[in-house]
Amino acid sequence: MNAATTGTVTTKIAQFGQLRLDSGATLLQVDCAYETYGQLNADKSNAILVLHAFTGDAHAAGISEDGKPGWWDDMIGPGKAFDTNKYFLICTNVLGGCRGTTGPSSIHPETGQPYAMSFPVITIGDMVRLQKMLIDYLGIPKLLAVAGGSMGGMQALEWAAAYPEMVAGAIPIASTWRHSAQQIAFNEVGRQAIMADLDWADGNYYGKSRPARGLSVARMVGHITYMSDHSMRSKFGRRLREKDAVGFHFGVDFEVESYLRYRGGQFVDRFDANSYLYITKAMDYFDVTQGRGASLATVFENTDTRFLVMSFTSDWLYPTYQSLELVKALRSRNRDVAFVELTSNYGHDAFLVEIDEQCELIKGFLAGTMKGLR
Amino acid sequence: MNAATTGTVTTKIAQFGQLRLDSGATLLQVDCAYETYGQLNADKSNAILVLHAFTGDAHAAGISEDGKPGWWDDMIGPGKAFDTNKYFLICTNVLGGCRGTTGPSSIHPETGQPYAMSFPVITIGDMVRLQKMLIDYLGIPKLLAVAGGSMGGMQALEWAAAYPEMVAGAIPIASTWRHSAQQIAFNEVGRQAIMADLDWADGNYYGKSRPARGLSVARMVGHITYMSDHSMRSKFGRRLREKDAVGFHFGVDFEVESYLRYRGGQFVDRFDANSYLYITKAMDYFDVTQGRGASLATVFENTDTRFLVMSFTSDWLYPTYQSLELVKALRSRNRDVAFVELTSNYGHDAFLVEIDEQCELIKGFLAGTMKGLR
Repeated sequence: MNAATTGTVTTKIAQFGQLRLDSGATLLQVDCAYETYGQLNADKSNAILVLHAFTGDAHAAGISEDGKPGWWDDMIGPGKAFDTNKYFLICTNVLGGCRGTTGPSSIHPETGQPYAMSFPVITIGDMVRLQKMLIDYLGIPKLLAVAGGSMGGMQALEWAAAYPEMVAGAIPIASTWRHSAQQIAFNEVGRQAIMADLDWADGNYYGKSRPARGLSVARMVGHITYMSDHSMRSKFGRRLREKDAVGFHFGVDFEVESYLRYRGGQFVDRFDANSYLYITKAMDYFDVTQGRGASLATVFENTDTRFLVMSFTSDWLYPTYQSLELVKALRSRNRDVAFVELTSNYGHDAFLVEIDEQCELIKGFLAGTMKGLR
Repeated sequence: MNAATTGTVTTKIAQFGQLRLDSGATLLQVDCAYETYGQLNADKSNAILVLHAFTGDAHAAGISEDGKPGWWDDMIGPGKAFDTNKYFLICTNVLGGCRGTTGPSSIHPETGQPYAMSFPVITIGDMVRLQKMLIDYLGIPKLLAVAGGSMGGMQALEWAAAYPEMVAGAIPIASTWRHSAQQIAFNEVGRQAIMADLDWADGNYYGKSRPARGLSVARMVGHITYMSDHSMRSKFGRRLREKDAVGFHFGVDFEVESYLRYRGGQFVDRFDANSYLYITKAMDYFDVTQGRGASLATVFENTDTRFLVMSFTSDWLYPTYQSLELVKALRSRNRDVAFVELTSNYGHDAFLVEIDEQCELIKGFLAGTMKGLR
């Protein structure tokens, strides 16, 4: 059994110099928060980079110093989908985040003040460029796999497009190769909700009142899109919250209202509103073909990377057809891609919930990819 | 040709005394804004009440004094689905609204100030009770039909449940017999966005700054739910707004952002934020079985009302299964119900857009219902 995933894990920080961004701007120094689980083998061929979704962090597995399990702890550990007895797992907090990696709440090295909105607008490509610096720093020449759900899947695709020689396998789950109008629209609503909050103060709220109401509204919208109509009916229906009849007031009547308000309020304590703006913008800008030629098929036409693409039936935020567009493009160039649409009622949340079915598919894919390397 | 629908139409106001509400509260006096089109026949058997959706008003057809066509002008007029050469059409603004009928922005008769949040919480049943007062006032003993989409469909069902002897035919379109958890959730987000705006000031913003930012965010969320993923892809895709490349800033990059901001901003000029709160709450409270026994089938088991139920394939806000629950309940008691799911890519907006297919179905249904009355 592996100590790293049974005992306490600590988030480490790697410090880097200049990071040149897609916008043309340069960050003079960048911190990258990361965790690792398992052991890197002698020929450094068993490293897997796990990539978090929008509001995740570097703490993917094990128990943190303050007692919290990792966001994909069900999937990463001894005997699990990403088996730490076999593989060396790495997870970073993304650039622009607020959980250890440099983002808008970080201190600008020249002014001594938080960047706030002077932080440059970043892309998924920029996030991956920083991760590449970390992988180089760790001395890993090639990743066995890059894997993640939702925005994690976008990073996995970006890795495969930007550094194909460094990626043996890519596992984008419940994700897309470019953000759609509807996905942009939901993100834009969240951003507008935050910026509508007077406490946002053009982003200069650090050390003052945070834009808690706006950020909470943004998160509430998010939560609706992460669930399915079916899962909301099952979980809440029209059940009232601690009452027998509606109250004829604007307090909480229904369980679903209580849930959304609670989750919205809770989020405010753990996430930075400006990070919300920057990371959603990075997602909206994401189109893996951008600057890489005319078509998706072209982007990946010469890649040796193997792909395992998964989607979920009830995920209406990142619907199956978006995964299928990727699969078709890869197959049109005879690339190695497996696709599975898993049946689930959990909507977009399924990638965090439907562990068993993902587990076997990932285990098989990783074993096959490892064999291919030898 | 009928003058009422080719020339200018004027919204009239009927004034009523006490209106007892489902909450137990009483409104001492109530204005009801309404329009009519066509002529009531001698035996008063050709009257149809058209019911508006959430943010609609009494101006359903013709051209208003300020030059605006009615919200269902494509459907109401000489030779149209609701043929004003044959039928007498009535449309009211709902209770709680802000377009002539008493609502939170109206002056409280005792204080001389706007009701604001002292306005009682209302229900779809209360809206229909006021409409019933108007129909009585107009001297109409029985309606040939009640018809509407979305919240209009809820009112149609409420009419059929509350006053079955007065409703020969009911046409609920893109609607539901009770609001689901997801529908409540989206409404709750809109309410929270408004109440998060400091200018909302507990509803006391009349004569001061209105909560424009919050109301705009609420409307943006609404617009996403009215469209389908498909229609957003067709209409906007990832097209940029008057630029060749993304701007790396938080202004408008994409057309879809521009559209949502524009529609949000425009809405603020025509709709009252407190009405938004009250009307969404009425929708969320809607469950036509409430206080009427155990099941939907029971509610309508002895009705003579005929039903024409329509839904649209891409409407994910009021999905087909919700219409089908109603149809099944009616059929289980051998009631007269026709159901059609129309193919459309326009999402929930389809009921305002897909005129041709609805037209033939409504024409046939009204002719059959009229024949049955004789």
